[in-house]
Amino acid sequence: MILQTTSPQLVIDQSKCLSNIQMMVDKAKRHDIELAPHFKTHQSHVVGGWMKEAGVRRITVTSVRMAEYFANDWHEILVAMPVNVLEHKKLNQLASKIQLDILAVDTEVIRVLSNHLTAEVGVWVEIDSGGKRTGVRAEDYDRIEQLITEINDHPFLTFKGIYSHAGQSYSAKGAREIINIHEASMARLRPLKQYLVSKGHKPLLRIGDSPTCSVADDFEDVDIIGPGNFVFYDLMQTEIGSCQMEQVSVVMVCPVIAKNEERQEVIIHGGAVHFSKDALSLENGSKNFGQLMRFDQLGWSTPIESCYIKSLSQEHGVLSVTREFYDEINTGDLVCVLPVHSCLTAEGMRGYVTLEGNTVDHLQGNQLH
Amino acid sequence: MILQTTSPQLVIDQSKCLSNIQMMVDKAKRHDIELAPHFKTHQSHVVGGWMKEAGVRRITVTSVRMAEYFANDWHEILVAMPVNVLEHKKLNQLASKIQLDILAVDTEVIRVLSNHLTAEVGVWVEIDSGGKRTGVRAEDYDRIEQLITEINDHPFLTFKGIYSHAGQSYSAKGAREIINIHEASMARLRPLKQYLVSKGHKPLLRIGDSPTCSVADDFEDVDIIGPGNFVFYDLMQTEIGSCQMEQVSVVMVCPVIAKNEERQEVIIHGGAVHFSKDALSLENGSKNFGQLMRFDQLGWSTPIESCYIKSLSQEHGVLSVTREFYDEINTGDLVCVLPVHSCLTAEGMRGYVTLEGNTVDHLQGNQLH
Repeated sequence: MILQTTSPQLVIDQSKCLSNIQMMVDKAKRHDIELAPHFKTHQSHVVGGWMKEAGVRRITVTSVRMAEYFANDWHEILVAMPVNVLEHKKLNQLASKIQLDILAVDTEVIRVLSNHLTAEVGVWVEIDSGGKRTGVRAEDYDRIEQLITEINDHPFLTFKGIYSHAGQSYSAKGAREIINIHEASMARLRPLKQYLVSKGHKPLLRIGDSPTCSVADDFEDVDIIGPGNFVFYDLMQTEIGSCQMEQVSVVMVCPVIAKNEERQEVIIHGGAVHFSKDALSLENGSKNFGQLMRFDQLGWSTPIESCYIKSLSQEHGVLSVTREFYDEINTGDLVCVLPVHSCLTAEGMRGYVTLEGNTVDHLQGNQLH
Repeated sequence: MILQTTSPQLVIDQSKCLSNIQMMVDKAKRHDIELAPHFKTHQSHVVGGWMKEAGVRRITVTSVRMAEYFANDWHEILVAMPVNVLEHKKLNQLASKIQLDILAVDTEVIRVLSNHLTAEVGVWVEIDSGGKRTGVRAEDYDRIEQLITEINDHPFLTFKGIYSHAGQSYSAKGAREIINIHEASMARLRPLKQYLVSKGHKPLLRIGDSPTCSVADDFEDVDIIGPGNFVFYDLMQTEIGSCQMEQVSVVMVCPVIAKNEERQEVIIHGGAVHFSKDALSLENGSKNFGQLMRFDQLGWSTPIESCYIKSLSQEHGVLSVTREFYDEINTGDLVCVLPVHSCLTAEGMRGYVTLEGNTVDHLQGNQLH
């Protein structure tokens, strides 16, 4: 299949993807916790189906729109972004159909929302355990209790537990740093959970960034993990230390459209609209928007050293390559590029093919409701 | 309309957009050159229609896919990326229907392509006049002539002229630098054109980045300009010096979903999938992913000082705001954000509404052919 495309294509190695899924399912089982994977990475019924076959029962998404996409197949969905009260009509529609969970960080929002609700919704209080993005600071027990009280006051709302995304793990370099971040985060979440239990609440603890869930091995007191990126992984995750390069289960296949002899550069059809603009910073000050990989009819294998995307325009990219690679490659050939950030590459491509040539869906269409 | 959305929306101020179009149409007329705008920015039949009404007759796009989208309405289209020979079937389909032009940088590609062609195609030789992205170096007369000879050798190919995108203008700060870049680029393109004329060729000279076309005023020897971004402009273009902030004709409208009192931050529904990851670097080392604007029922006006998007997750963003703004804004309110890069924001949103509430199309669907 790889050798037949005429334009940029996002290819899934299904067997690598199934291995990633099984690894996380096994890990959750081993720790007696539930895996509720984040679907923001793949946004696909087909890939979701692979997870269902592996035993997954509940899922995490980033938007109401994404929840709508999955609501026919999945009956317990958490929209893991502070709830947007303006979307109450859609929330009611979803909540009348499935077990819908939302995130809360603000008593006022809970109050406004509850005035609009006509169906039951589960509520998770989002906790900031070090990521400093959203959520109530883990030590702010008063505010957290206030939120729970507010939730319990409303007949359509049920307090489910506390949710924390340790997004700071994305700045880690290596397994040791990831584990340190996980431990620091857990050292703030555990006492909070115990405090809430002591106050008569029954909070579940739900966490879940891919670095932590991939590398850490202490999940005491955790009830649910919800990583997303692990299903594909990507170049960024190999840099962080979440995975090995051979675990990455998606790759971009791009046609070579030109060569520049003077600058020893290769131009590919494949740009910012395909890859997204996320990049790794290299030691020499330049950027890496994707790593070239060796490939054959069976799939891709090892990285081609010193060959990567150095710049991206809207529709095409410029490769920095070795003399050897430059001499071997021709216009009309295809190259295989490991994406830096698979979530955003999938969002740009909005569709996949497997190595066997089967098409795989991705949430489509425009963002307008 | 602005006050009715429940999720992130990309809004066009049609009157500002029409002014931008008219300004460029008038400028082209004044210099007796043709405007063949780049449609990669808006990717819209409706916005294209506004251009047609203003007198535009031929257009520029980045991909065959985009050319297909416009081929019913436009009968002369240049795909301004080095031609991807693997797409020859689609090129033939298009070329049998419209006047299709392509870019060439390589004799070998021309040779391979011509073996596949069944319909007439116009060819522009892409020249690198300083952008160092793609194209033949402007001084490499031998190679350029070789290319033209190769083109003229094939019955289905017609040499149209030389094309250069002075993308280096995107690193300019201010009108003076843009003009310097334009002059340096023209100082390389003019002698080339004259040389080709002296050799009996009849090359048109086609250039067109938005900074240069917006600011420069010397278009002697230029035949066609093809800027794209000017139709909307964006925050990056105001930084470069291509436009004033009040000329920017698109804005993102996003719901406020949370406030963080401790960090004095505001969280919006609106993330990397909506805005893209392009950012301006601020003097304090942080990044600006979008500028907050004042707005009312009639549209938006001036920037709200020191209020901007400081970080973007996949679906939501964190605003850095002043104390005053923080105190005034509430969850459930809408904010108006000038995007950093309107081309990629439009690509993420894939649809618009006008201030009057009319929906406007954008090229849809996934990237798979």
